[in-house]
Amino acid sequence: MKYFTRPVKIGDIVIGGGAPIVVQSMTTTKTFEVEATVNQVDRLEKAGCEIIRVAVPDLESAKALEYIKEEIKIPLVADVHFRPSLALAALDHDIDKIRINPGTIRDLKKVKEIVLKAKEKNIPIRIGVNSGSLHPKYKGVENGLPQALVSSVLEYAQFFEDLDFTQIVISVKSSSVMETIEANQILAEKTKYPLHLGITEAGTLLSGSIKSSVGMGVLLFQGIGDTIRVSLAADPVEEVEVAHKILSALGLRNRGPEIIACPTCGRSEINLIPVAVEVEQKLSGLTAPLKIAVMGCEVNGPGEAREADIGVAGGKNGGLLFKKGKIIKKLSPKQMVPSLVEEAKRLAAGSKKEGRD
Amino acid sequence: MKYFTRPVKIGDIVIGGGAPIVVQSMTTTKTFEVEATVNQVDRLEKAGCEIIRVAVPDLESAKALEYIKEEIKIPLVADVHFRPSLALAALDHDIDKIRINPGTIRDLKKVKEIVLKAKEKNIPIRIGVNSGSLHPKYKGVENGLPQALVSSVLEYAQFFEDLDFTQIVISVKSSSVMETIEANQILAEKTKYPLHLGITEAGTLLSGSIKSSVGMGVLLFQGIGDTIRVSLAADPVEEVEVAHKILSALGLRNRGPEIIACPTCGRSEINLIPVAVEVEQKLSGLTAPLKIAVMGCEVNGPGEAREADIGVAGGKNGGLLFKKGKIIKKLSPKQMVPSLVEEAKRLAAGSKKEGRD
Repeated sequence: MKYFTRPVKIGDIVIGGGAPIVVQSMTTTKTFEVEATVNQVDRLEKAGCEIIRVAVPDLESAKALEYIKEEIKIPLVADVHFRPSLALAALDHDIDKIRINPGTIRDLKKVKEIVLKAKEKNIPIRIGVNSGSLHPKYKGVENGLPQALVSSVLEYAQFFEDLDFTQIVISVKSSSVMETIEANQILAEKTKYPLHLGITEAGTLLSGSIKSSVGMGVLLFQGIGDTIRVSLAADPVEEVEVAHKILSALGLRNRGPEIIACPTCGRSEINLIPVAVEVEQKLSGLTAPLKIAVMGCEVNGPGEAREADIGVAGGKNGGLLFKKGKIIKKLSPKQMVPSLVEEAKRLAAGSKKEGRD
Repeated sequence: MKYFTRPVKIGDIVIGGGAPIVVQSMTTTKTFEVEATVNQVDRLEKAGCEIIRVAVPDLESAKALEYIKEEIKIPLVADVHFRPSLALAALDHDIDKIRINPGTIRDLKKVKEIVLKAKEKNIPIRIGVNSGSLHPKYKGVENGLPQALVSSVLEYAQFFEDLDFTQIVISVKSSSVMETIEANQILAEKTKYPLHLGITEAGTLLSGSIKSSVGMGVLLFQGIGDTIRVSLAADPVEEVEVAHKILSALGLRNRGPEIIACPTCGRSEINLIPVAVEVEQKLSGLTAPLKIAVMGCEVNGPGEAREADIGVAGGKNGGLLFKKGKIIKKLSPKQMVPSLVEEAKRLAAGSKKEGRD
């Protein structure tokens, strides 16, 4: 089902060519504030970010790339708009990819300089088109915005190919989920370059996660997309966690605990919401893919708890703790969270870490 | 693209037959606490809930149905497990649908009584199968759980048909997104009864919303599903809001404001996250489908803000307020939220309320 794309190496991470879907994010610090940026990248890496992009809106930020690169472990991508000179300055450093946008760097003579320098230094380029900054010449394109986004990105890619440059990753993003889906479906049929997916300016934490989950969910289910970035007006650590949850829902990657929690109807015997929330928080640092059930009553409770790696099912006074399908013990309401957390951590310690397959 | 299903009338709401996707939820109060239940239903209705289900785990709750029904405006569904007598008791009242589960009410002689009574009273039945309470006889079914869920629900439906009862809605839910998708894809090919979608026990607010968005997103995009219920371990009002956001992302329904907010990279000129969050909160009561942009900088900012009904794009000292593509005024940082909220409310007042089409 997966659309075949060519692999492109970003540092030691492969995008495309059947590699696992890569999770990336973007820093929100001023890039020239090296220490703050590096600290944020470290937090993002711990959360499961595999490639990091930083904005390069000025020369100070371009210069900072060198110091940031020295201090971080994951591949570094420079994001440049408007000023070709900044793209060239960014390419002076040992970065792992550069992202440029056909809508904001339009002068093809300058683009040629950037491409030739990237080629010389063997640095891949993402051509990233966004609905909000589409080159005006595509605005009137027939068949609407999705086709316009695709035409813009593919014409730029053709220009790169004519310069014998093929280390290309492509993205077309719209703040409209349906436009993003349609544009990427067209792209997947027309190009072999790996696709970077995202719903741009998706919104705040919950709303943006919903739009991203619907859009990327539909595309990834169809086998479209090689790397994803969830764009949220929120701490970028949330972007990374949401990205992993999307991949996990689709069975494409598994990282960290998944809480199966019932929605507490009038049948619930325990006050389940705080239990589920607390368990999720206390286990948020784990990377082992555990399935943990927190169930309020007897309708689906024991069934779900039995199928989970570990779980509790609520009863009249407390609940039952299940582990790998067996009842381990009866818990009082007070024991519920600490016992479940303790047993889950023990299970996690004994299980393998997330693999990249 | 939409799979054709037969329409089934639940009170004055139609599920299936090409009707708009219906949003439903379930109360978390003790059903026999009538006042608390009615208050929650009122809150849910205001949030956009169109059908409400209540748990009926005891006779007191069955009796309460009569009083609840008198006090609420949206159709009322009784959810019954384990005790056929409670289903019969629920059907004594003027409810709009009853939900039973083949895994928890297995005695077909009793099921026949329920079906005949529902038929006599012209009350539709949802046959709702969940992975956690699947009838044991289907556990060994070939081709795994999705096929087992489908076999269970369709055999039950056949039994209803043999009693000449066809006012049927069907659901098959798993806490696994992929299993839920697969089961519903099989179902859509095999039945003409309308489908109620949900990922069961999806989890806490954010995690559960992501799983629901991916699962329902994929299915609805394929034209599968006539009504949805998001199951969260959270206030059910959140379930309704998330459901509407999923439908809105897919362009199937539109309710309330959509905030297009950029993810604030190192390029942002304003402290955008709190602005976006505050604007979203202050406008959360609106039902008019407005597109509102809150953008941090010049890369996509003015472009997105111009395409939105209303928006701000950040600049060095404050930002610009756009309305229907035109700059209305320059805003100081302090004016940003109040001006945007005020103008959005004015726009909303002038626009039509959400239509059901």
